[in-house]
Amino acid sequence: MRESFDTVMKRRFVFMQSFLIHGGVSGLFDYGPIGCSIKNNIVDAWRKFFVVSDGMLEVACPSITPHRVLEASGHVKRFTDLMVRDETSGECFRADKLIEEFCDVDLMKDAKHSNETRRAGSMTIEQVEDAISTFNITSLSTGAKLSKPLPFNLMFKSTIGPSSGSSVFLRPETAQGIFTNFKRLLEFNGGKLPMTIAQIGKSFRNEIAPKQGLLRQREFEMAEIEHFLANGETGHVEFCKMADVEVCLFSRTAQERGEAESWTTLGQAVEDGIIVNQALAYFLGKTQKFLRQCGIKAIRFRQHRATEMAHYAQDCWDAEVLCSYGWVEVVGHADRACFDLQMHSEATDVPLVAWEQHQEPRERRVVQATIDRALIGKAFRARSKLVVEALEKFAEKEGEEALAFQKGKEEGAPEALKLRVEEEELEIPAACAGSEHGAFYYPRVVEPSFGLDRLFYCSLEHAFYVRGNDHERTVLGLPVSIAPFQCCMLGLSSNDQLMPIVYEIHEEMRKMGVNCRLDDSAANIGKRYARMDEIGVPFAVTVDFQSCQDGTVTLRERDSMEQVRVPKEEVPQLVRSLCEARESPDVSWAAAKERYPSV
Amino acid sequence: MRESFDTVMKRRFVFMQSFLIHGGVSGLFDYGPIGCSIKNNIVDAWRKFFVVSDGMLEVACPSITPHRVLEASGHVKRFTDLMVRDETSGECFRADKLIEEFCDVDLMKDAKHSNETRRAGSMTIEQVEDAISTFNITSLSTGAKLSKPLPFNLMFKSTIGPSSGSSVFLRPETAQGIFTNFKRLLEFNGGKLPMTIAQIGKSFRNEIAPKQGLLRQREFEMAEIEHFLANGETGHVEFCKMADVEVCLFSRTAQERGEAESWTTLGQAVEDGIIVNQALAYFLGKTQKFLRQCGIKAIRFRQHRATEMAHYAQDCWDAEVLCSYGWVEVVGHADRACFDLQMHSEATDVPLVAWEQHQEPRERRVVQATIDRALIGKAFRARSKLVVEALEKFAEKEGEEALAFQKGKEEGAPEALKLRVEEEELEIPAACAGSEHGAFYYPRVVEPSFGLDRLFYCSLEHAFYVRGNDHERTVLGLPVSIAPFQCCMLGLSSNDQLMPIVYEIHEEMRKMGVNCRLDDSAANIGKRYARMDEIGVPFAVTVDFQSCQDGTVTLRERDSMEQVRVPKEEVPQLVRSLCEARESPDVSWAAAKERYPSV
Repeated sequence: MRESFDTVMKRRFVFMQSFLIHGGVSGLFDYGPIGCSIKNNIVDAWRKFFVVSDGMLEVACPSITPHRVLEASGHVKRFTDLMVRDETSGECFRADKLIEEFCDVDLMKDAKHSNETRRAGSMTIEQVEDAISTFNITSLSTGAKLSKPLPFNLMFKSTIGPSSGSSVFLRPETAQGIFTNFKRLLEFNGGKLPMTIAQIGKSFRNEIAPKQGLLRQREFEMAEIEHFLANGETGHVEFCKMADVEVCLFSRTAQERGEAESWTTLGQAVEDGIIVNQALAYFLGKTQKFLRQCGIKAIRFRQHRATEMAHYAQDCWDAEVLCSYGWVEVVGHADRACFDLQMHSEATDVPLVAWEQHQEPRERRVVQATIDRALIGKAFRARSKLVVEALEKFAEKEGEEALAFQKGKEEGAPEALKLRVEEEELEIPAACAGSEHGAFYYPRVVEPSFGLDRLFYCSLEHAFYVRGNDHERTVLGLPVSIAPFQCCMLGLSSNDQLMPIVYEIHEEMRKMGVNCRLDDSAANIGKRYARMDEIGVPFAVTVDFQSCQDGTVTLRERDSMEQVRVPKEEVPQLVRSLCEARESPDVSWAAAKERYPSV
Repeated sequence: MRESFDTVMKRRFVFMQSFLIHGGVSGLFDYGPIGCSIKNNIVDAWRKFFVVSDGMLEVACPSITPHRVLEASGHVKRFTDLMVRDETSGECFRADKLIEEFCDVDLMKDAKHSNETRRAGSMTIEQVEDAISTFNITSLSTGAKLSKPLPFNLMFKSTIGPSSGSSVFLRPETAQGIFTNFKRLLEFNGGKLPMTIAQIGKSFRNEIAPKQGLLRQREFEMAEIEHFLANGETGHVEFCKMADVEVCLFSRTAQERGEAESWTTLGQAVEDGIIVNQALAYFLGKTQKFLRQCGIKAIRFRQHRATEMAHYAQDCWDAEVLCSYGWVEVVGHADRACFDLQMHSEATDVPLVAWEQHQEPRERRVVQATIDRALIGKAFRARSKLVVEALEKFAEKEGEEALAFQKGKEEGAPEALKLRVEEEELEIPAACAGSEHGAFYYPRVVEPSFGLDRLFYCSLEHAFYVRGNDHERTVLGLPVSIAPFQCCMLGLSSNDQLMPIVYEIHEEMRKMGVNCRLDDSAANIGKRYARMDEIGVPFAVTVDFQSCQDGTVTLRERDSMEQVRVPKEEVPQLVRSLCEARESPDVSWAAAKERYPSV
């Protein structure tokens, strides 16, 4: 089946390795007209389903990212894979994949090889060395001895600016652009949490030796969501809509005990403490609904084991999809606590915090940003704007200096606050000290992270089938909402009477915004239907000789191959309605069959 | 006005320099929620207006591009700007911009400085040296002496693969991905020309010293079209729709003579030989319509002078938009002849050609791919597939070897063709030689190339206005189709009776796919309207106390500030219809005012 699938993908240029005429580059892919259209539709659907429907805020940040940003986020140090080198040929292998391939079993499930339940992917350098010597692993190509494992940073490096320039990377994920904008986004949202930010865009990973086609690309499209929670909150206001959703969970415990996945509802899983909180569970449900909408069938959620998770993460679940490569991670979901905001705050001295107003003022005294602008204006005149900014910054800070000042106030000592403004130390009359009206805190964040190319690939594989047992008659049974074209216009023959009607309806379709392809080739009608089936076009409108007499045309549905006769004036609106889910359920193929005569 | 505009853009986080908390990087920008939404809408609108409506084929190729691809295209050698360095501080300047700034006049228009009509941008190294000494140009920052001008390649470099890797660049334009896929795309299109391919995506240019905000970014979004023409064709099948479109042309001659722009129709301009052909003129018209649809008003088309154009280009016209930075190039249009396909063919030995069938077979004899597979199968058995491939490749070639073979045949000499197959030279019985049924040719290409961020910026500037003379009351009068949100839901106060109705309508809007923002802040209603005006939201629905009694709400239109009362059940559909241009003209604000009572 996979072979037949690959043939169609290649023959119809759905996707293809890039720059093939120049020799090609592994891990880079081109999307042809069909693939590009399907992927655009998936992106649109994602935006509607997540951003518009949940009222998220979307941002777009550059791929080029300065060294210091990714140093703050930990990527410069830790975004690595272990690599081993063939000592004779110099060829490089990714250590974990080599071990997995060599052992030809998932170590995790094989008690003989290891008492720990672990995957090669989470091994330390020492464990990899150990595994290589234990299993006598040698180069896959030459059988030669392998070098010691070395960490290889997966980020593409470049420089920006003239001559030597400054060091930059291509972002390995889109999320950092959201974290670095946190303050502005919170302000945009009126200072209120929860707040949900999304970003869709390219990310880049210089994989050591990419295989598995679209599943492991060096340049790929992500859609990431950062859901920032209010202090102490772990719920989600719309969780009630998800509580009854049934999901297939492959929990940490099940993996450790060698048990199978099990079905439960999201509400139950939170109650049982399997999923850490409602907010994370809400997004698992939302993700599953979206994957189903893209026609993906076999979905499970696999929880990360303790060895897989970063130290700061509270809980992680991967949405995995079963395809011909096995279970493939398509969406990651992580409760990342407040790690990222904290790291950037520490690196920049800009506090990425939110303010929580107490219900009742509390007694403890703190420095507070009740700034008397009139007083400051009088005292500092031209520089008063800078002074106010310095004060606001100071007041947001909860560091030692602020505490010392507060302590001093409590003890009745300092009358003035000393702040550096433009290289000069100024004495500023003490801001007021009163009741504590609230406190600053780093918000916790829940992050669903979609690999859109993997989602695209799985949608295609799950949509692919053959009619009967005929491997020549392949169909892409894609959901109408993501099909590459919504409709195809055909003439039964290229007869002079028929073609004007074909063009007229095609023009009408285009005017209505229906993405309609015209096939005016000379191939017979059956062959042309087959071509459309192969690339997943859900509807075909054919003008035949009866059309010249009674003004009707045939409308064919891809999966059932059923046809109805429809007056030509009605067909553009009918096709448009059939294609736009939101105008259903009044308009469905079943309804069309009742309304119009079958052929 | 520009100051007031900049303030709003910053305060509402429409766009902003990237990574500011880490010190910022010039030439990189973040799009906040408003900017991102507007830009997405522009991309969608572009795709509908060009790709769907004209039946173009869209592809998506990676940004990472191997060295050899950009060497073939000429970018490695020629994609440079001239740079001069401050000899004391080491600061780098772009030579042309420095000269322009220094002279503080457009050289082109200043007869005192130069008898040639030229721009600094098209100066050679020698001319730049000349200008620097003639005008006594020194460093803008220190006044120090400047280095000799040096070419600086604007492409970002990196490496791909483990350890040292292979040399790659970030693409400086999207077009190369289209040219390298030409063969597959032509096959997808049934071998037929004309064929129009589009690509939307990021491009990257390591500008020496980017200024002018969004107008000169180092990472930016392009939308490019490559319209491939059939042999000898220069027309466009839909030119008749564009012939009467009036455009403001700033021709080469007018520029050279110091004359002003002039208005004419596209049909007239082609007839007068001002625009080289219909195909190019068609896209000028299409572009102008699109810019207008995005709310852009002052548009002119400026023709490149001979010194500006690449040697292979036949004619180039920039769509320029007047904004606060002056006339800015937003869309380039070039007739590139067949340069790109030829360059890649020569570099790869893969002929990127199309086949033209003659109406009548002609007498001249050529090598032809009428391959006798049975004969080859017998003669070469296991290798016959390779032989057929080699033969097909040979037959597509029009090089010396093919001509020699053909000449030999005509003279009756060669009985067999010698071809290298897998390192071995094989003698293949001569393929047939007969009438010439057609010929291969490199198709000519016309290329419209959009800078989407510039288009975005100009749309915003042209949409921006203030009410009366009050610089606090700013409005983004964006066309509804690209507004960041379609609608805003408000409660007159946060009263317990009102808010449930607000939430109910908001939920209904979301279900209908209306991109609706909820503002439940405590600010008074006037202030909240002003906030929505400022970011260009065209409609606001307000629930007030009358709503509790009679079930009606108010609907306010942004530009007129007029309000009507509408039953709450009808308002979601009404807003949706008002926002979707395609459902007009039956539904317009004027019609809504007639139908519902004013407030």
